[in-house]
Order: sequence, then C-alpha cells, then structure tokens
Amino acid sequence: MKLGMIGLGKMGFNLALNLLNHGHDLVVSDINPQRGQQLAEQGALPASSLEDMVTKLVPPRIVWVMVPAGEIVTGVIDTLAGLLEAGDIIIDGGNSHYKESIARAGKLRERGIYLFDAGTSGGTEGAEHGACFMVGGNAEVFTEIEPLFRDLAVERGYLYTGESGSGHFLKMIHNGIEYGMMQAIAEGFELLEKSSFDFNYENVAQLWSNGSVIRGWLMELAQNAFAKDPKLSGIRGVMHSSGEGKWTVQTALDLEASTPVIALSLLMRYRSLEDDTFHGKVVAALRNEFGGHAVVQGEQ
Amino acid sequence: MKLGMIGLGKMGFNLALNLLNHGHDLVVSDINPQRGQQLAEQGALPASSLEDMVTKLVPPRIVWVMVPAGEIVTGVIDTLAGLLEAGDIIIDGGNSHYKESIARAGKLRERGIYLFDAGTSGGTEGAEHGACFMVGGNAEVFTEIEPLFRDLAVERGYLYTGESGSGHFLKMIHNGIEYGMMQAIAEGFELLEKSSFDFNYENVAQLWSNGSVIRGWLMELAQNAFAKDPKLSGIRGVMHSSGEGKWTVQTALDLEASTPVIALSLLMRYRSLEDDTFHGKVVAALRNEFGGHAVVQGEQ
Repeated sequence: MKLGMIGLGKMGFNLALNLLNHGHDLVVSDINPQRGQQLAEQGALPASSLEDMVTKLVPPRIVWVMVPAGEIVTGVIDTLAGLLEAGDIIIDGGNSHYKESIARAGKLRERGIYLFDAGTSGGTEGAEHGACFMVGGNAEVFTEIEPLFRDLAVERGYLYTGESGSGHFLKMIHNGIEYGMMQAIAEGFELLEKSSFDFNYENVAQLWSNGSVIRGWLMELAQNAFAKDPKLSGIRGVMHSSGEGKWTVQTALDLEASTPVIALSLLMRYRSLEDDTFHGKVVAALRNEFGGHAVVQGEQ
Repeated sequence: MKLGMIGLGKMGFNLALNLLNHGHDLVVSDINPQRGQQLAEQGALPASSLEDMVTKLVPPRIVWVMVPAGEIVTGVIDTLAGLLEAGDIIIDGGNSHYKESIARAGKLRERGIYLFDAGTSGGTEGAEHGACFMVGGNAEVFTEIEPLFRDLAVERGYLYTGESGSGHFLKMIHNGIEYGMMQAIAEGFELLEKSSFDFNYENVAQLWSNGSVIRGWLMELAQNAFAKDPKLSGIRGVMHSSGEGKWTVQTALDLEASTPVIALSLLMRYRSLEDDTFHGKVVAALRNEFGGHAVVQGEQ
C-alpha cells in the first residue's frame, strides 16, 4: 500500500523500515530532513513538507503520524486536516490522550476524514521487527488499513479495539500496568541487593526468564541490563516518566477505581526525581520537636 | 538416577511424572497411598513409609521432599534425618522459609547429610513439562544432583544460587515480585472494566501477550482465564495468599528495604478477604462525627 509517515524518530523511523521491508510504498517526512534522506536510501520517497507529502499521495490518502503527544501531534494533525480530503485516513500511532483522540476524531469526521488512534507497544525493536497495536476508529474503514497492521505487528499483535479513543485508552492502561510490573520487578532486585546473599543478577534474571511464573519481556530486558552493568552502578535510580502512567492514575480517579499499586508506582517515580524531599524535612522536624530526635543538618 | 520423591501433591506428582519421563528410577511416597499407586502404573516403585523408601534406595541416597512448608516439611525432614546416613542428600523443593532452610542445613550438615533448598516455579504445568529451579546448598555436591534439575527444568531453567538458604530466598523474592505483577495487571483490567469502552478481555490479554512490553506468562494465564469466563463473573475477588508474599514483606522490614508496591499488593490481598473492614467503619464514623455525613447502617 502507499502511505505517508510523518515523524521519523526512534519509533517512526523503525516503523518506516518495517513498512519498507514489507514492500509498502512510503512517503516520509520529519522536521530533520536527514532522517528522510536515510530512509530514501531504503526506498522511501522524502517529502519536503506536509503539503508536498499530500500531493505525493493519492486519494484516499493514508498518513501515519508518529510524533510526540500534545502540542506537536495537535499541530501536525490540524495542518494535515487542512490539506486532506473527505475519505482520507490519519493514523495517530503516538501516545495521545484518549480524550483528545475522541475529540479529534469527532472534528475530523465532520470533514469526512477518518482518524485511527493506534496505541503502539513493543519498543523500538518491536517497531522494526514486529510490534503490538491497539487500534480504535471506524470499524469499516479499519479493514482498509488492516493489512498495514498485519505486516507491522507480530502474529496476533494487533487488535481493532472499537470506537475512537479505545486504542489510546488501552495503550494508556497497558503503560499503567507496565509501571506496576516494573516497580514490582525492581523491588525484588532491591531485596536481593540488600540481602546478605551474593546473587549474580544477570543469572537470576535469565533464570526467571525461563520457566518461572514471572517470565516475560521485562525480565528479559532486566537480563540485558545486568549483562551490560552487573550492579547497574553506571545508572542513577532516577525514574522519569512520559505521562501515560500519570494519565492512567488520573483516569483511575475519574473512574473512582481502586488501583493503588499503579498509583504508588507512579509516585515512586516522582520520589526518585528528588535528592531530598520536603515531606522528609517535615517528618524529621516533627520527630525533633516532640522527641528531640536528631535531624540531619542541611544547608542554610 | 535413582531417587525418592516424598509428597505427591499437585507439584510432587507432576515432578515425579517428569522424572519418570526422563528415565529416572523413582521410589515414591505420599500420605495418600493411591497417589503412589497411580505413579506405579507409570513405572515408579511405591514405598509404604519413609523407612521403606530409605531401604529401597542405595547410598548415597537422594530424597526429594515436596510437601507443604512449615510443620509438615519439618516433620518429614526430621524423620528422614534419623533414617539417612552421612553422604545422603535431601532436596527440599517446597516453599520453606529461607531462614529455616539455613538452620536445617546446618543441623543436617553436622550428620554429614546435605540439604538443598530448591525453590520451584512454573506451576503444575511447569512441574510436568519443564519448571524453573533456584537451588542453594553445597556447591560440590550440587554437581551430583545437577542432572535431575537439567532434566526437570526448561532450557536455562535452573540456577545454583550459592550457600544454603539462597534458593528459597530467591524463590521467596520471585513470589513477592509475582504479587506485585499480578496486582498491576489486575488493576489494569479493573480500569478497563470501569471504563465506558466495551473491551473483550480475552482479546486484550491475547493482544498484550503478543509483541507488547508487558507480555509474559501471567498475561497468557489472564487470557486463559478470560477465555473460560469473559467477565470472571463466576469468581469472587477473594485473593488468598500462601505466605511467601508475607515473608517477602517481613524480609523487606528486616532489611529496611523500600518495597512499597510488593507490600501494598500483599495488603490488598488481606483487604480482599474481608466483606467489610473496621477501618472503613472508623472512617465512616469520623466523617459522620465532624460533618454529619451519612453512614451506611450495619446490623446491630
């Protein structure tokens, strides 16, 4: 199939490679033209702008947008909407908030443009060699773009999830689960490290990746990480997050759903961003006030 | 190799089948003689008692004990210790507390008997078709029993973990991680269920098992569960636990290790065992006291 790919970052570039390897006809665009040139060597046709891309595609056009969520994806899709025609299709493969995807799909639908919210999982490796897609949008039109997902995904690795927003919602929850699973795995290794035993963590992660109840891709990634750095001494325990965990917890509050472990995993990430905490100061001060317990002096 | 297997419950029976399928020569014993008879049909030699088992083995004897942790395993190993000789080997494949395994190994060592603490993961399916073993004990003697683990485990599915206690310690931590991972996965589905979208959970779990970051055996088991009962309406959300999660959290307290998600996963299990809670009554009463907020009346 012929389609456009906008956004050639880590994920978009690898998805483009994956599509090219499956014989698709690709027009590509990125704010950094070098990324398009690199893909041109693999057979893609670089576009100099979104306008140029749209003229290089034929109706009904399919444009895959793989750019950061928020203002950037809003800007790209707004611009695209002004260039595309009724019957054209936009796939948002990024991590847009599901409520934005619902609103955006509604606006585009008025102009006859179909938006699919395609949550994408599997990392950069998956993007190139087989990923996992959760796709919401018009059921009938989905069948037209389904071959793309069949080619890009691992076997059984895509699902039409229903109405607009359902794909990004499911991806958001996936990431929330990921936060909790990662924190649980990490706390296990915390206990091994604090114990008096002398475990080789690469061996442990490899063992747990083979035949155990907790086997899975995250454990295999832990094995890789420990293989590179047995005690992770080159890495600080600063746990950034890119927003989907926060959205999951906000959604849990909206739905008044009891999800303490996912929420706490997110809060532990925030804790990790601070060398010291104000709540720590407050507790230390209160212990000092009522019991004269020593405090650790800070800078004045 | 020739060895004894004591305890033919779900795990022991399947491990025995696995050993028989690998051509090992098995003497078996269980408090329920029928279990031994069933294995006799598969080629095992049933023993009528521990004494009988010991006479049916030749020194250096190997006896695999697969019975519930606590008093039962203590009783079985104490009895065995009185029957075995220096050079004999006991493998405790159950979930004994690692501190008990350390103490027990020390006592047996005085009599020249080697105890291996072999944490076993992979469920009943793994026990029969390939499990995961974490084995602590004497390094040199381990090489003598290593062929058993090589046969019983999946590829790369066993690890000699070091001194006595290290196998059961590692298995305990594995189970702690399992608590956190399961709670995280479960909270994700909680959010799907509370959302306004209409997801098919079997399809979702299958999708997430293929190519996603959170793929793993637990997600495959979730798929199986939803395949049998799409909304799990036949199951109450009562989450029992068998002690390893509690030990993990007790160990975290001993080590003063920050493992909030594993701890909270355990506390959520306790919460699930109660239809109502006393803390709930207290909060409701306090809201009523200070703000006149209505309480839900209970039985007098």
